[in-house]
Amino acid sequence: MTENLLTEDAVLEELGTKAKQAAKILRGLSATEKNAALAAMIEGLKDNTENILSANKMDIENGKENGLTEALIERLTLTEDRLTGMQEGLDQMVKLTDPTTQNDGQWVNDQGLKIGKVRVPLGVIGIIYESRPNVTVDASALCLKAGNAVILRGGKEAINSNEAIIEALQEGLAKTSVPKEAIQLIKDPSRELAAKFMKANEYVDCLIPRGGAGLIQTVLKQATVPVIETGTGNCHLYVHESADPEMAKSLLVNSKTHRVSVCNALETLLVDKSAAEAMLPALGKALLEAGVEIHGDETTCSLIPEAVPATEEDYSQEYLGYEIAVKVVDGYQAAIDHIDEYSTGHSDVIAATDYQVIQNFLNDVDSAAVYVNASTRFTDGEMFGFGGEIGISTQKLHARGPMGLEALTSYKYVIEGSGQIRE
Amino acid sequence: MTENLLTEDAVLEELGTKAKQAAKILRGLSATEKNAALAAMIEGLKDNTENILSANKMDIENGKENGLTEALIERLTLTEDRLTGMQEGLDQMVKLTDPTTQNDGQWVNDQGLKIGKVRVPLGVIGIIYESRPNVTVDASALCLKAGNAVILRGGKEAINSNEAIIEALQEGLAKTSVPKEAIQLIKDPSRELAAKFMKANEYVDCLIPRGGAGLIQTVLKQATVPVIETGTGNCHLYVHESADPEMAKSLLVNSKTHRVSVCNALETLLVDKSAAEAMLPALGKALLEAGVEIHGDETTCSLIPEAVPATEEDYSQEYLGYEIAVKVVDGYQAAIDHIDEYSTGHSDVIAATDYQVIQNFLNDVDSAAVYVNASTRFTDGEMFGFGGEIGISTQKLHARGPMGLEALTSYKYVIEGSGQIRE
Repeated sequence: MTENLLTEDAVLEELGTKAKQAAKILRGLSATEKNAALAAMIEGLKDNTENILSANKMDIENGKENGLTEALIERLTLTEDRLTGMQEGLDQMVKLTDPTTQNDGQWVNDQGLKIGKVRVPLGVIGIIYESRPNVTVDASALCLKAGNAVILRGGKEAINSNEAIIEALQEGLAKTSVPKEAIQLIKDPSRELAAKFMKANEYVDCLIPRGGAGLIQTVLKQATVPVIETGTGNCHLYVHESADPEMAKSLLVNSKTHRVSVCNALETLLVDKSAAEAMLPALGKALLEAGVEIHGDETTCSLIPEAVPATEEDYSQEYLGYEIAVKVVDGYQAAIDHIDEYSTGHSDVIAATDYQVIQNFLNDVDSAAVYVNASTRFTDGEMFGFGGEIGISTQKLHARGPMGLEALTSYKYVIEGSGQIRE
Repeated sequence: MTENLLTEDAVLEELGTKAKQAAKILRGLSATEKNAALAAMIEGLKDNTENILSANKMDIENGKENGLTEALIERLTLTEDRLTGMQEGLDQMVKLTDPTTQNDGQWVNDQGLKIGKVRVPLGVIGIIYESRPNVTVDASALCLKAGNAVILRGGKEAINSNEAIIEALQEGLAKTSVPKEAIQLIKDPSRELAAKFMKANEYVDCLIPRGGAGLIQTVLKQATVPVIETGTGNCHLYVHESADPEMAKSLLVNSKTHRVSVCNALETLLVDKSAAEAMLPALGKALLEAGVEIHGDETTCSLIPEAVPATEEDYSQEYLGYEIAVKVVDGYQAAIDHIDEYSTGHSDVIAATDYQVIQNFLNDVDSAAVYVNASTRFTDGEMFGFGGEIGISTQKLHARGPMGLEALTSYKYVIEGSGQIRE
């Protein structure tokens, strides 16, 4: 046991020290140099297509032996097309503006000091994630583009794929001015090492968990490194009595079923009591036709005979599947109260045409993304125009909502004087 | 024990629930309404001057009985003048711009959604601090001005003063549209309750510790609520060979001795080897005349006979007193390496006239405030022009350096559509 612990500390010390050194070099590089590194990473992936696919085959075989669900196997699977997609993603990132080339203002203070607020990389970013190997490429590239070194801790199901991908990326980096230790993988899949990683404040400036609610809660509870909480989405659509019924139906079906397994998928529908009789049967029919099981309150069940009674738990559920909770509410304030109580602060929508109600909703709902007459599925870095996205923050510190490159930076103050002292 | 734990949970639940309710009201108020509340807080303090001073007298008597140092007694002591100073501070805050009236941009995405990034309050802020009762007023007012509710956990030495101040502030608030529970104090000074407070994610959006390094480390290790790390300052002055000797001396003495007990006070002096013989004796003399004890490396001790040999520990020390560590370095890179290793990332200064060296220093040093030819003592919200300051962040997430009102806010995305769904 003692020996194991020592080894884990040694592993982290080596990864951490190298990452810090890489970060130091990265923060001095120009956008051109970092873009050249991204281009070299694309080449690295191309040159190692076979390696990566055969490593992935091993993970899939192991996964099947270990009884992974079909959905998980599907997430884990890489194909030549998917690898090409990753390369295209990297190519898109080359085109994005380097956030550290921008500044947040410059002014002169009362004593004549010239104060500039300039964007700088965070330093070393830790990513803890589950079985999708594409995260390995995406997250590494986003961190690097913003000038950060990254240490990745992926799920053990994808360990062979991840190792092969990281080797390919590092092979690319070796030909550039970015040290290959800018992207490193924790190869030991043990929980002990993961736990120590979460407390490695000396080496890691910020930890971003990507995955299910269980993973995120574990990281939040165990980490002493500052964490950005991502991606738990109990999202609501509130259909106000002034809503356009056809639009409400279209938003409902798209938000719920466009992709059910993601954090911006809809989980709860609220409908004004005054509009329930007129609108709910058609909304219910659309859901049922799309294959969605309805958990409804009493009124809902009376208007949609196929609905099953909802329990308290249904309203706090993130189903991530073909299920939805439905509640008929006694007007605007009841809808706001419900959202306040149950929303995870991710994405909440009102379908309405009444101007004042819409303004109130935009002010009253305290979520990362508050929508009027649009699908929850738009809460996404690419849809917001950020290019890539490292995750969707549901906390309020540092970054909120879809996190693009700027969320992977901090700032510092640069102060130029001519001998000023404080009187 | 079990009963105690239940009581602590109940105390936190009550404080937390009320704070959340107050935060909900606060986030809907206009700047005018919040400013009226600040004005009412000034009146509350005025009307309760006697109460506050006599409560403070109790704290001072208890402190003397319990053997508090003179310095701590001095920090704890309130006078009529100091109370007036607090009121003036509040009056200054009225004049500051409400950060939630500003937005961070608005754009239209490819699907025609109008996306706005608007500033919103964080919600409920927890402040954990030590014996200075002026923090009770300052922190409460800053949080409120930015639209947040605050829960304060002050040191037990100041408990009577803090209770009297909070009562006065609440008496003021009671006459306004801000609920008095916008500002609450934890009256139970137990560590158990403090520990639970640090894990009250359900109620608290952000925790800001203010005090010594011990307090801050405890909060960082125990808290699961997101923390902003503040105020540990091992600050450096690097005197480059190109420095103006008189300016270097003036910066050194001011940075070190203007106020020795604060986090932006200088703790380490680095001098280029090539300039040591010419400059160090005069720098040493100035320090000694100012009453500063010098811990120096070998060269320093040979050039300043009064210096005592520095140990490794001296270079990581935050003395917060009339002591300084001095090292002669072998040129620019050695200075940067030293700062990289020992700096807490607060404030570091170069004294130099060589343009390229200065540019390199501004890029290479990764601290919240990087200075050229100015005193470290300027790292301060007021000196930066932010008006008030809630603390100085030495972490990179969320806020870095002096934190004014904007650091007490987050943002949300407000998205207005006309039925857009995701294809």
